[in-house]
Amino acid sequence: MKISARNVFSGTVSALKEGAVNAEVDIALSGGDKLAAVVTMESAKSLGLVAGKPVVAVIKAPWVLLMTDGSGYRLSARNILTGTVKTIEAGAVNTEVTLTLAGGTEITSVVTKEAVAELGLKPGGSASAVIKASNVILGVPA
Amino acid sequence: MKISARNVFSGTVSALKEGAVNAEVDIALSGGDKLAAVVTMESAKSLGLVAGKPVVAVIKAPWVLLMTDGSGYRLSARNILTGTVKTIEAGAVNTEVTLTLAGGTEITSVVTKEAVAELGLKPGGSASAVIKASNVILGVPA
Amino acid sequence: MKISARNVFSGTVSALKEGAVNAEVDIALSGGDKLAAVVTMESAKSLGLVAGKPVVAVIKAPWVLLMTDGSGYRLSARNILTGTVKTIEAGAVNTEVTLTLAGGTEITSVVTKEAVAELGLKPGGSASAVIKASNVILGVPA
Repeated sequence: MKISARNVFSGTVSALKEGAVNAEVDIALSGGDKLAAVVTMESAKSLGLVAGKPVVAVIKAPWVLLMTDGSGYRLSARNILTGTVKTIEAGAVNTEVTLTLAGGTEITSVVTKEAVAELGLKPGGSASAVIKASNVILGVPA
Repeated sequence: MKISARNVFSGTVSALKEGAVNAEVDIALSGGDKLAAVVTMESAKSLGLVAGKPVVAVIKAPWVLLMTDGSGYRLSARNILTGTVKTIEAGAVNTEVTLTLAGGTEITSVVTKEAVAELGLKPGGSASAVIKASNVILGVPA
Repeated sequence: MKISARNVFSGTVSALKEGAVNAEVDIALSGGDKLAAVVTMESAKSLGLVAGKPVVAVIKAPWVLLMTDGSGYRLSARNILTGTVKTIEAGAVNTEVTLTLAGGTEITSVVTKEAVAELGLKPGGSASAVIKASNVILGVPA
């Protein structure tokens, strides 16, 4: 698969919580990092999602927020993944920032250049990627 | 909280409409502007959302569309917030546009530079921000 | 309607599948291309969506992923629209790519410049647009 999303992660379904309409899919990424996705029950059935199934999780970089200080608040977004800033590539309006998570997964975000300054992002510094579970697209081997 | 999203609004839950799966959360922003968010019932319970509760609403700038003429159509997006263009910062492909809403809330959008030309956006001009309720992340004091 | 989204498609509702919370709306675009949208049942009723109703589908360019090789995987995203690359406009971080679909619909995506290189995108080449159904905003004549 060749897809434009900066983030295409290989993993395994670790848990599937079925609801009336949607299913929450917990994914163990190779390396040990974890990710939650929400898909419709229809998609979950169509893709044959069950615990142990290999999947890829696809996340477009502009769907990833970055946070350097989460103190004082709890967020509705299901994924808050802490790591270290690996690279920062600045453009005129947008900047691409890549984090390395604890388990070794690299995750790329596109944020505005003001955000980079305000958050004090720099290579080697700590930051968290915030991702809504509904912004994770799942793929399964055909 | 230090987060990359250009839009982090303080407000208070004004109404909570519970559904089987999702909850619609109406938020009164300081200044008088209003915003609707949709979160899962699980998130609504976990965050303890009830009328009167202080919350922050987090919206990434690329999730905000701009509209200068809404005549003739009604949209499925729940939030259509009218204001005045405050600033326009152009890049090679994307442009960052900030509106000031009636109640004083400033909201930032990232759109393509062609969109700025086609919509005739200029500082002082009128425009509306269009935001899907499911693209609003909520945070509550920990 | 003047809206910043690069993709505003005219079409007709071809089928409406009602669920407990959400409705899937199948749309026949003029030219013959097809698109699936998911909106809440509340929105579907409020907009009066029924088969045969004229609608516009609004999709912001950063919500469109591009894929040049989908072999080996099936995705949870409902829309996978194959076409030919018409234009590529590069910026420092982001690049705007427009595809022409089989039925003539032109669809625009914003992806990172690395993605353009990795996918080997060039005018005249084949590529598919991948769009989550929940990222399609619908509009109906007022």
